[in-house]
Amino acid sequence: MISILKNDLLLKALQGKKVPRPPVWMMRQAGRYLVDFMKLKRKYDFFTRCRNPELATEITLIPVKQLDVDAAILFSDILVVPQSMGINFQMKENEGPFLERPIRSAKSIQKVQVPDVADRLNYVFEAVRLTKQALENSVPLIGFAGAPWTIFCYIVEGKGSKTFDHAKTFCFAQPDQADILLQKITETTINYLLKKAESGVDVIQIFDSWGGLLSPEDYKRFSWQYTRKIVEQISLKVPVIVFAKGCWHALEDMKNSGVSALGIDWTIHPQMARKFTKYTLTLQGNYDPAQLLAPIPQIKKNVQKMIKDFGTQQYIANLGHGILPYTPIDHARAFIETVKEI
Amino acid sequence: MISILKNDLLLKALQGKKVPRPPVWMMRQAGRYLVDFMKLKRKYDFFTRCRNPELATEITLIPVKQLDVDAAILFSDILVVPQSMGINFQMKENEGPFLERPIRSAKSIQKVQVPDVADRLNYVFEAVRLTKQALENSVPLIGFAGAPWTIFCYIVEGKGSKTFDHAKTFCFAQPDQADILLQKITETTINYLLKKAESGVDVIQIFDSWGGLLSPEDYKRFSWQYTRKIVEQISLKVPVIVFAKGCWHALEDMKNSGVSALGIDWTIHPQMARKFTKYTLTLQGNYDPAQLLAPIPQIKKNVQKMIKDFGTQQYIANLGHGILPYTPIDHARAFIETVKEI
Repeated sequence: MISILKNDLLLKALQGKKVPRPPVWMMRQAGRYLVDFMKLKRKYDFFTRCRNPELATEITLIPVKQLDVDAAILFSDILVVPQSMGINFQMKENEGPFLERPIRSAKSIQKVQVPDVADRLNYVFEAVRLTKQALENSVPLIGFAGAPWTIFCYIVEGKGSKTFDHAKTFCFAQPDQADILLQKITETTINYLLKKAESGVDVIQIFDSWGGLLSPEDYKRFSWQYTRKIVEQISLKVPVIVFAKGCWHALEDMKNSGVSALGIDWTIHPQMARKFTKYTLTLQGNYDPAQLLAPIPQIKKNVQKMIKDFGTQQYIANLGHGILPYTPIDHARAFIETVKEI
Repeated sequence: MISILKNDLLLKALQGKKVPRPPVWMMRQAGRYLVDFMKLKRKYDFFTRCRNPELATEITLIPVKQLDVDAAILFSDILVVPQSMGINFQMKENEGPFLERPIRSAKSIQKVQVPDVADRLNYVFEAVRLTKQALENSVPLIGFAGAPWTIFCYIVEGKGSKTFDHAKTFCFAQPDQADILLQKITETTINYLLKKAESGVDVIQIFDSWGGLLSPEDYKRFSWQYTRKIVEQISLKVPVIVFAKGCWHALEDMKNSGVSALGIDWTIHPQMARKFTKYTLTLQGNYDPAQLLAPIPQIKKNVQKMIKDFGTQQYIANLGHGILPYTPIDHARAFIETVKEI
């Protein structure tokens, strides 16, 4: 897939090339803090929004138009992958994903399918094609997936959780069964992301939202081992960013895997993250989304400091997690504009 | 308060003195995994259990008798402190603490009292005296309090949360008001812990369950600054352990404060924690409670490895967070016995 992008700051930063200023985008930038998103949210339920390519395209483009970010990220959800595997999540309003029967036995794991993603997730690939057309090569399009561990957490816990104790204790009590399920998720995710790259996304980000719940050794054992397999395959096609929340201890390991960048959250100081990655890798992050509620002059100061601490090269300005629903759009704009003024 | 304890392993480890083996106790050791605790839980509601000194004593002693741990920790709750300040939490079954009107304005902060703890929290001090008598100097008694930041989180959020976004955004949007409230909590906590030490506890542990939600800089600004004031006062009376979950980045700073030990969770490797604390401080932790669900032979291996990684001196074996409600008691015993076999 060759396309000449008008704004290629993100791709340059991912290749480690010199940029006049860091690229900037925000996790969950097409989310609930936007009036236009909320209008669509009231009209269409969650899975309709994900499954209708026109709608997904429309939502993806809102922050590109309204906030002038340097990248679009396809509107979708990490749970489309387990859905395609025959695991049918409901999305409960204000509560999040819910599974009537969480998967916690050898028998139920055996039933989990590794599907033909081209068929089952065609709506995503169609959304990629439509969005690429609509973007008219203005900015790159990021596609994403959950890390196998994070998907596993939802499948075994059956719902969101602070600690995902059931998912964790399942791993520790029945590691062989956990491996079978993790491997199925990994295979499906590889097929899914290869097809997504083929459909036109310029970059892939893998979200490991719950990697930070594991010890350094268990993270390697139950999470990174599988995410690494995905990175090895997908990075042959497009640049890959891995964002493993809370996994500061694994940065050094993750660096040696074919990733083009690592996302970090705000609980690690930028200079410490640079040190752990030997000053050689592009890093993305790490503004605390709650700090977008500070007064605008304070946001400007904080963002300037963040960029100073990371440096302007091999750096992608972003939040350290998704933007909060009640963030005023002016504050989000202040974040983006401060980066652009560098 | 001079008492000659039959088992003084914990006190020796806290003083950095040589011990034949590490002392061991478990956070939430008097909790829901115990049949006898569940019987009392069904009979008495949460605050009755905390406020009745005889009942608190009875609960405190269960794990000492049934698991033969090297320390008792007084059954109570961190929320007795805000209760004493006129902030009336309800305890919702399966949901945790709930505040009808979370405190989020200058006006409501102004109304928060710094109470006469001797009067308002007399039931705690009475429970300390009763428990000390009942223990007959067998093992030391630990008393505890929440860190001001963690108490602040519940007061401003009004309930438990994964991310305590409202508490955080309040700090960032109105730092001066946040400081007033944090200072009131700090003063009350100092008075409370001084009185607790006077009543007979041998050790104090401060729990900062939500410190890990803040960036390193914000942790210093909104949490450690206040916890430090408490440590400075209380450590003149009894040894103090600070357990700030997720705050690996602050270990070095916290070391220089008068603490006798720092608690750590399982997301930092023991050797890394030793390195950050310059190999000079007693550390406590850090077994992942979910790993107590592994088969017993695996628990034994894991515990042996943990002790090898920490070393047997200047070390207190513990979990990295509270024991899970559905932990089989045999697994908890395997944890404790493996430490004792060292």
